[in-house]
Amino acid sequence: MRPFTAPQLNPASETGWRRTWFDIIYRHDTPVSRNFDLLLVVAILASVLAVMLDSVASIHLRYARLLYGLEWMFTLLFTVEYALRLLVVRRPLRYALSIWGVIDLLSILPTYLSLLIPGSQSLLVVRVLRILRLFRILKLTRYVEESGVLVQALWRSRRKIFVFIFAVVTIVVIAGALMYAIEGPDNGFDNIPLSMYWAIITVATVGFGDIVPLTTTGRFITSVLVLIGYSIIAVPTGIYTAELIGNLREMDQEARSHDTRGCPGCDLEGHARDAHHCRRCGHRLPVPMA
Amino acid sequence: MRPFTAPQLNPASETGWRRTWFDIIYRHDTPVSRNFDLLLVVAILASVLAVMLDSVASIHLRYARLLYGLEWMFTLLFTVEYALRLLVVRRPLRYALSIWGVIDLLSILPTYLSLLIPGSQSLLVVRVLRILRLFRILKLTRYVEESGVLVQALWRSRRKIFVFIFAVVTIVVIAGALMYAIEGPDNGFDNIPLSMYWAIITVATVGFGDIVPLTTTGRFITSVLVLIGYSIIAVPTGIYTAELIGNLREMDQEARSHDTRGCPGCDLEGHARDAHHCRRCGHRLPVPMA
Amino acid sequence: MRPFTAPQLNPASETGWRRTWFDIIYRHDTPVSRNFDLLLVVAILASVLAVMLDSVASIHLRYARLLYGLEWMFTLLFTVEYALRLLVVRRPLRYALSIWGVIDLLSILPTYLSLLIPGSQSLLVVRVLRILRLFRILKLTRYVEESGVLVQALWRSRRKIFVFIFAVVTIVVIAGALMYAIEGPDNGFDNIPLSMYWAIITVATVGFGDIVPLTTTGRFITSVLVLIGYSIIAVPTGIYTAELIGNLREMDQEARSHDTRGCPGCDLEGHARDAHHCRRCGHRLPVPMA
Amino acid sequence: MRPFTAPQLNPASETGWRRTWFDIIYRHDTPVSRNFDLLLVVAILASVLAVMLDSVASIHLRYARLLYGLEWMFTLLFTVEYALRLLVVRRPLRYALSIWGVIDLLSILPTYLSLLIPGSQSLLVVRVLRILRLFRILKLTRYVEESGVLVQALWRSRRKIFVFIFAVVTIVVIAGALMYAIEGPDNGFDNIPLSMYWAIITVATVGFGDIVPLTTTGRFITSVLVLIGYSIIAVPTGIYTAELIGNLREMDQEARSHDTRGCPGCDLEGHARDAHHCRRCGHRLPVPMA
Repeated sequence: MRPFTAPQLNPASETGWRRTWFDIIYRHDTPVSRNFDLLLVVAILASVLAVMLDSVASIHLRYARLLYGLEWMFTLLFTVEYALRLLVVRRPLRYALSIWGVIDLLSILPTYLSLLIPGSQSLLVVRVLRILRLFRILKLTRYVEESGVLVQALWRSRRKIFVFIFAVVTIVVIAGALMYAIEGPDNGFDNIPLSMYWAIITVATVGFGDIVPLTTTGRFITSVLVLIGYSIIAVPTGIYTAELIGNLREMDQEARSHDTRGCPGCDLEGHARDAHHCRRCGHRLPVPMA
Repeated sequence: MRPFTAPQLNPASETGWRRTWFDIIYRHDTPVSRNFDLLLVVAILASVLAVMLDSVASIHLRYARLLYGLEWMFTLLFTVEYALRLLVVRRPLRYALSIWGVIDLLSILPTYLSLLIPGSQSLLVVRVLRILRLFRILKLTRYVEESGVLVQALWRSRRKIFVFIFAVVTIVVIAGALMYAIEGPDNGFDNIPLSMYWAIITVATVGFGDIVPLTTTGRFITSVLVLIGYSIIAVPTGIYTAELIGNLREMDQEARSHDTRGCPGCDLEGHARDAHHCRRCGHRLPVPMA
Repeated sequence: MRPFTAPQLNPASETGWRRTWFDIIYRHDTPVSRNFDLLLVVAILASVLAVMLDSVASIHLRYARLLYGLEWMFTLLFTVEYALRLLVVRRPLRYALSIWGVIDLLSILPTYLSLLIPGSQSLLVVRVLRILRLFRILKLTRYVEESGVLVQALWRSRRKIFVFIFAVVTIVVIAGALMYAIEGPDNGFDNIPLSMYWAIITVATVGFGDIVPLTTTGRFITSVLVLIGYSIIAVPTGIYTAELIGNLREMDQEARSHDTRGCPGCDLEGHARDAHHCRRCGHRLPVPMA
Repeated sequence: MRPFTAPQLNPASETGWRRTWFDIIYRHDTPVSRNFDLLLVVAILASVLAVMLDSVASIHLRYARLLYGLEWMFTLLFTVEYALRLLVVRRPLRYALSIWGVIDLLSILPTYLSLLIPGSQSLLVVRVLRILRLFRILKLTRYVEESGVLVQALWRSRRKIFVFIFAVVTIVVIAGALMYAIEGPDNGFDNIPLSMYWAIITVATVGFGDIVPLTTTGRFITSVLVLIGYSIIAVPTGIYTAELIGNLREMDQEARSHDTRGCPGCDLEGHARDAHHCRRCGHRLPVPMA
């Protein structure tokens, strides 16, 4: 996971309108750019809401024209924003091919496509992905530290979680094949992939109930599967909690060892709070500050 | 979340019946006021029970008159209590507009309204909100410390939980839009808001089963959604547990580090609270501060 | 929760058959009594299995006579055991009225009752409660320590769990009343108690799907309820985990502070491992043992 | 759980083709053997995929011949591999009777059996168990440490988890018998084993909804059962998390207490590993041991 590299200004013009718009669009720390961010968030949420409402039959019947107008308005707005982003950034192609650039493009394309191929409008739902942009903006608010801790803990436990997911998938494959062999198409377990879908729904304790075991053996295996699922749900929680607490303890120890005295003799830092002498050269240390 | 400020006595009369009733109603530490609290709790529970039972058709058929009588009795009782609360408190309007005052009013209003607009009685269910008052009374019992720890940990992890809820909502919006596009109205995913409702029910592993995916792609996406839900349920648990344990450790360290005396003979710190002599050199220690 | 007091021998005869049978039945540490325990466990499991199998229509049709015979055999066996328990114990009435005595009686009574009132045999399912006796026997094996830790942690967090259950019940009452008002009997929410049942099933993420919201408002409230349920499932886990870890840390500290030196001057114990002098009188301490 | 003992070379030939193939098949640290492992994983996944696809009716109709060919190809491949494994290993019978040997045999047998008994091919689903072999190969990659920690924590909490499962089963037996007595065959609770299946599905919060309580008493008991299930899900999570954190702390303390030097000047212990001088008196410390 390569850390996201901030976009850089198109060097063509260090000053001028490009500089102005680059600061507005890509920076998030000036009043103007913050207002732009706010406007963008409102526009994204409003356009997503419009797509949502348009999908409701009764609303579509009455407000189809209004919503159609809004769709074009948002599309044009986002098109202008997309064009600006490409114009002012240093490496337009790189931005266009980045995940954010692709989402931006996909969120305007369906409306234009619908002129050529009627019905492709329904692809507009892709626009909801733009909501992810909110996360990038949020990253710059006070929530940055909190989400940082959460994501860091997730990232540090990624291998353990991968092992866990692998174990769950193995259980699902075996349980799916077993249930297909036992229950079979007569009881709704039409094929192994469908049985595996059922096993995932069951082991994760969702249990839709559209497919259920009807034989005694099938029910017994389901019981075992459910108890396994019930027990191993502890595993990701345990992994994640241990990681979060580990983080906490580290911060704790860092805070405790917040002794900033440098040795007058050898410049060594990081002494224990109760140390009177440097642990390397034995030189007397200054009295620590409260 | 402004900490709740205890109501104050109407200054009109420092003594007299107002003083007496203020002490009975708003204080919770005298025998009389405790009896009042107990009576109030019983009355609230009984009135809620009456509303509940009245909603059962078979009971309504046989005991409609009795329950109607009880309803008026409780309404009058709570009206008197409401009037008293306003009369004896220092700033009646402030109380009336506080959340508790509004609930108190809403819990008596429907009965009076039903004289004008028949059928508005069904709004009486609002009365169950008065049950929340139990919490305030409980706050003054031995459970205060326990619930304090729980709420404090929740409050301290509010930002992390907000980030988590935001992530879940984003997943739900995207999954809802995707499933609407894939399954569509033919398979019960009538519109995006309904699909989002389904996604919430699914990701939280409830799984009613009234709406289920029927296409292979839909089932695959559902499987992924369910596995995500199954994995991230670890996050709030991890957050909360880490916070609770952090609380515990803090209390622990506070208790341990409560002795700040240094030995006059050898400067050693960290003595037990009941120590009279240094554990290293045996020098007499100063008397610990309270 | 009064700690269980071990039954004592009937003082009538310190020796003789009473002594023998008391040791066999109530002690669990001699070869003979262990064999008796094993036999009892097998008999309980077999009788429970017989009750289970008899409830299956196809098995009942073919083996009704055999299972009827087994039922009487187990009943007579448990009757003899019950009589012996009463005869050899010091205070028979106290045993008879203890929870174990009542279960023992209830597990034999239905068979006798079925002679007078046909059909009361179905009450035999009570016999499964005897399975709880297994726990008492297990308590004396190597699992004692493990289950002790688990139960102790549960017991120490009982107040916190009570506060949690109280909060859940309040949410359920309010959600139930709301859903009854919104969805109403037309959509299957027949009355408030039924709505509360639905709310419990939903908030605990079971979601049978026999009752589901059909209105938009109802679905919105359900979504909120589900997200609340999804979030607060963290609370009991957090409580319990923190308690278990607290236990662990305590054991840890106890082990670490395992300094058994008494002060030669004043007999004070519980010194820090690195103490050279008594913290009360300053007397020099002996060198600690490895 | 006897730690897995690595297979040893057939001593008949320390050199020659046996040595070569032993290294290829049973070692996992040479380039050739790693390629063999990779090939094996691909073959296993492909054969499992073929079995899965063959179970889908529409695919079976069109590609039955191709999939039949693939099945024989994989069967012959795995037969050759199985033969090689037996030939080069030191104790072939021991390998054949080990869990891996049995799975290997079961994964090829059904195809041959289908020549004698038509239809036994459906047993081929057993082949998916070969997927477990992936775990052994994974054990030698960087995931070894991670999964080691997870499994170790599970293993150390096995007694606690057993006690927990035993408690759940007891609850399930009692709830199943109760619900059978209350709801009975008329409401779908046909017999006690079926009721127990329902109780497991319910207490684990799966809730298929094919069997649901219809009486008021039954619903009340279900609510209690669900709340119990909701509360005790905390137990395995608590156990596992505490164990994982315990592991973490141990590693921590081991790392910290790794310096056993006492100061020759003042006897102070607990120096940092890189300390050359006592942090209290500045006396030169002895060189730390490796």
